[in-house]
Amino acid sequence: MLHTKQTNLESFLHQYKDRARLLITCNDQPGIVAKISKVLYEHGANIVQSDQYSTDPSGGTFFMRVEFELPDIERKKGELEKDFEPIGKELQMKWQFSYMNQLKRMAIFVSKQDHCLLDLLWRYQSGDFFCEIPLVISNHPDLREPVESLGIPYYYIPVNKDNKPEAEMQQLELLKKYNIDFVVLARYMQILSPDFIKHYRHRIINIHHSFLPAFVGARPYERAYERGVKIIGATSHYVTEDLDEGPIIEQGVKEVSHRYNVEDLKRVGRTIERDVLARAVQLHLEDRIIVHGNKTIVF
Amino acid sequence: MLHTKQTNLESFLHQYKDRARLLITCNDQPGIVAKISKVLYEHGANIVQSDQYSTDPSGGTFFMRVEFELPDIERKKGELEKDFEPIGKELQMKWQFSYMNQLKRMAIFVSKQDHCLLDLLWRYQSGDFFCEIPLVISNHPDLREPVESLGIPYYYIPVNKDNKPEAEMQQLELLKKYNIDFVVLARYMQILSPDFIKHYRHRIINIHHSFLPAFVGARPYERAYERGVKIIGATSHYVTEDLDEGPIIEQGVKEVSHRYNVEDLKRVGRTIERDVLARAVQLHLEDRIIVHGNKTIVF
Amino acid sequence: MLHTKQTNLESFLHQYKDRARLLITCNDQPGIVAKISKVLYEHGANIVQSDQYSTDPSGGTFFMRVEFELPDIERKKGELEKDFEPIGKELQMKWQFSYMNQLKRMAIFVSKQDHCLLDLLWRYQSGDFFCEIPLVISNHPDLREPVESLGIPYYYIPVNKDNKPEAEMQQLELLKKYNIDFVVLARYMQILSPDFIKHYRHRIINIHHSFLPAFVGARPYERAYERGVKIIGATSHYVTEDLDEGPIIEQGVKEVSHRYNVEDLKRVGRTIERDVLARAVQLHLEDRIIVHGNKTIVF
Amino acid sequence: MLHTKQTNLESFLHQYKDRARLLITCNDQPGIVAKISKVLYEHGANIVQSDQYSTDPSGGTFFMRVEFELPDIERKKGELEKDFEPIGKELQMKWQFSYMNQLKRMAIFVSKQDHCLLDLLWRYQSGDFFCEIPLVISNHPDLREPVESLGIPYYYIPVNKDNKPEAEMQQLELLKKYNIDFVVLARYMQILSPDFIKHYRHRIINIHHSFLPAFVGARPYERAYERGVKIIGATSHYVTEDLDEGPIIEQGVKEVSHRYNVEDLKRVGRTIERDVLARAVQLHLEDRIIVHGNKTIVF
Repeated sequence: MLHTKQTNLESFLHQYKDRARLLITCNDQPGIVAKISKVLYEHGANIVQSDQYSTDPSGGTFFMRVEFELPDIERKKGELEKDFEPIGKELQMKWQFSYMNQLKRMAIFVSKQDHCLLDLLWRYQSGDFFCEIPLVISNHPDLREPVESLGIPYYYIPVNKDNKPEAEMQQLELLKKYNIDFVVLARYMQILSPDFIKHYRHRIINIHHSFLPAFVGARPYERAYERGVKIIGATSHYVTEDLDEGPIIEQGVKEVSHRYNVEDLKRVGRTIERDVLARAVQLHLEDRIIVHGNKTIVF
Repeated sequence: MLHTKQTNLESFLHQYKDRARLLITCNDQPGIVAKISKVLYEHGANIVQSDQYSTDPSGGTFFMRVEFELPDIERKKGELEKDFEPIGKELQMKWQFSYMNQLKRMAIFVSKQDHCLLDLLWRYQSGDFFCEIPLVISNHPDLREPVESLGIPYYYIPVNKDNKPEAEMQQLELLKKYNIDFVVLARYMQILSPDFIKHYRHRIINIHHSFLPAFVGARPYERAYERGVKIIGATSHYVTEDLDEGPIIEQGVKEVSHRYNVEDLKRVGRTIERDVLARAVQLHLEDRIIVHGNKTIVF
Repeated sequence: MLHTKQTNLESFLHQYKDRARLLITCNDQPGIVAKISKVLYEHGANIVQSDQYSTDPSGGTFFMRVEFELPDIERKKGELEKDFEPIGKELQMKWQFSYMNQLKRMAIFVSKQDHCLLDLLWRYQSGDFFCEIPLVISNHPDLREPVESLGIPYYYIPVNKDNKPEAEMQQLELLKKYNIDFVVLARYMQILSPDFIKHYRHRIINIHHSFLPAFVGARPYERAYERGVKIIGATSHYVTEDLDEGPIIEQGVKEVSHRYNVEDLKRVGRTIERDVLARAVQLHLEDRIIVHGNKTIVF
Repeated sequence: MLHTKQTNLESFLHQYKDRARLLITCNDQPGIVAKISKVLYEHGANIVQSDQYSTDPSGGTFFMRVEFELPDIERKKGELEKDFEPIGKELQMKWQFSYMNQLKRMAIFVSKQDHCLLDLLWRYQSGDFFCEIPLVISNHPDLREPVESLGIPYYYIPVNKDNKPEAEMQQLELLKKYNIDFVVLARYMQILSPDFIKHYRHRIINIHHSFLPAFVGARPYERAYERGVKIIGATSHYVTEDLDEGPIIEQGVKEVSHRYNVEDLKRVGRTIERDVLARAVQLHLEDRIIVHGNKTIVF
């Protein structure tokens, strides 16, 4: 479509070719920062940004995100990771390096509603998102055109109560074939099976409406209208086996009034949904999220 | 305490001595505005502000708030109300005139937490609220000082499971004695009986926390913390028999993060609660709220 | 592109085929509402929504927006307007009827930045905006593709300091040829001449960044960064001869921090700009704006 | 007044008796974090929270805030600071330790408007602020009562164009006598001399209104009203010689409409001002602000 994306991406990859991020979770204990920063320093890395959080300094859980520059990182990262391993074991960490010259590969799942999809595509092609979108999967044929017009393959895989296992099998094969890192459910109106979710644990991002107070169950906009809520919102979260109960990534709200009918509420809801989902995807792309139990630490 | 209040009140009463408001609910039908505005015009009233809302122009419910100036209103209002009655009957309206030279009389119920009480008192004495506060009632003795220092009587009426009917009786007598128009529950931690509520239908304003998504039941801040919510809020509503399920008047939110522990969330919650409750009281004082079913029209 | 638009438009036109709006400005005086609602009632119109505002009930300016249903409006509107004229003259009004079965015709002017354009097009094709977009005009060829892919003609009219009068002449001819009602400057980076503006007084909508405090002049994002602002915003306004000083329609803000570099600020700025501009266009499409002096009344 | 404060303070002092914060500014260079965390670790300190920011990893400025627990800190801090000095010199840092068992001492300057003062006092006595308020200074006698009712001395020092140097001398002596750490101008309507400011560089916090776009000069609310702004705000900043141009600490906004007259705008403005000022004071109390040039890094 537009050619801004290619230029942006190239400039991004050039600017950050030696940049990496390290995410850490472990039990809190003295010396963590000292040990980690020492290894990085000894390998010639310069810490650009670092965030920490500890649930409780006397025996809680410790979280850390470090962003660093390491000149000639492509050549040196093997050695860095190798030397990091003893510390990781000593401190009983979960840790993960990610390198900004390897763009994350995002798959989008969509049904018939296009607002979230189009917003993600716009941010992708305008260079707000630095990632690859190798494919879009849908249980409906409707949204093929805007996807293919950007040169992105669109897979139409119908889902019904009889073929669900086969459909998910087909989806998983595509995700594997395209080497997908994470999945965004852009108003995908199908419940994924626990088995599917297991393959992408904390790597499937969903968006749903939210209200103050919440209306669980069917027809939420209608019930929010009947109760006359003054604020509506949307919540983005990682998908877990508990439907819509996974760790919250990002939330947003807008004020409404009695003048909004159900259609108006849905229209405003769409605007919030696409905004909140895009922010959640951005946070994920920047490796800013650590999941801990059923909550997120967002640095 | 400070003497700003008296000056503000006098100036307010002088400026709006001939100002009144009319609230209307009826079935929608052609000619409502024409008939109402004609009567007002014939009595010499000038419409200053007028808001309407119709749930559905073909047979829904019609709501209207008219604010008008009527020179020498004190003398003329009897005749105006009398001439309005035939229209009210013809259109099968619910209607209510209120006159700005008659300050509303607000009672505050409070327990031990002072943030909502102090904010209401501050707005009262600083002249943001134009009303009387003839008394404060509490089931604890703790907050006597800031109330009495403003010259407002403080009634300490302990409530427990044995004496609740007697306590409510005593409260109702005080409300009657002081000629109270409406009651504000400023974090009053007792459930009012249906019988009590009946005496002040749609005239008791409550405030409670709200979350996206909602956490119904005990320990909401703890559970919001555990789920890692990114936005917390508060909801002000009229009290009905369904605890915390009455018509919503006003809502507000603030963003939070994983860095907020349970105490921090409660602290932010207090700030939102006092702000939202004050705005709800302001709307009530200005006769901007019409209750319809379980929702509010806020003009 | 997508075929949702056509369906939405048809359903809109069918639902509101008998709906109209009336905007009024005049000196405040008793009886305005009575007289206006009487005429509407006598012609069989049912007022669906009505908003008024008076700068000062004793001799200020009075503003009113009435939305009404008039069955068989297409046939009856001539007579209604004719009978309205004597009242308009008596009260020395400015007034304007608009009919919802006549979709407003919006032209978009754009340069190289696409964020506002794409958002407007998305809302158009998704059925959030009920209007026609007969053409897009640009001083650059870059954004032809997304416009033409929706079947909208794209006119590339280069502008430089030598050809500006001719270019504006050409633009005005196109606007006339396509019968354009109003113009949206979606980041159009050219200053329109006073002569051009005169043809579309209070019918050209612009968007620009805004800061607390303001940074007038060149490189505003750079200066906002240097000052370390914590909130950035955007303002949409009608274009007048005073560059960026016209009546404000809508504003919006987002919080930022020291972590945002200049590029980040611009990225957030783009998100606010497209959101605020879309809201301003929505208000204009719904005839909710009355300009008075250098300010707007937005009902 | 209320006795909550004393209890809160004691519990705070007990909980954080071994907690300290370290603020650092220096040129960015590899190894900073490693060196700092090593010293802290060797002295037995456990890093509880750590934030960093670098304007540019290749040669920019590096900022860091570390919060740490050091058991028996009162006894050990001398040695820690001594051992830190060589690193500070090596890296050419500006650094500052602060200890949470030493409450900051805040002076409030006020004139006639009470909204900011009362909010600060409420947060102080309710235990939201952990600090001492040893005195309030005013150029008017009006607000003596609410201050003295909390047992805080109130000094009335009239200021006029003739006595300004003497008045400031008197103020400075009081600040010295009471061992004041920082000053909050809670709507203090006098301009402080450069000489006064020099004594409390980046330790005087001011609040002023802000608009999108800004209205510099006299009668800002009147002009904001005339332009019909839709959002008003407030900005809190450190006082520098350039009036109202110092480094911004915190900002806030609220939406308004044409219905707000000048008085309403001022009323909303007061609510934003007290909220934004309180948040700025909170950030200062928690040592979250580093001033760099004319901007702040807020961790």
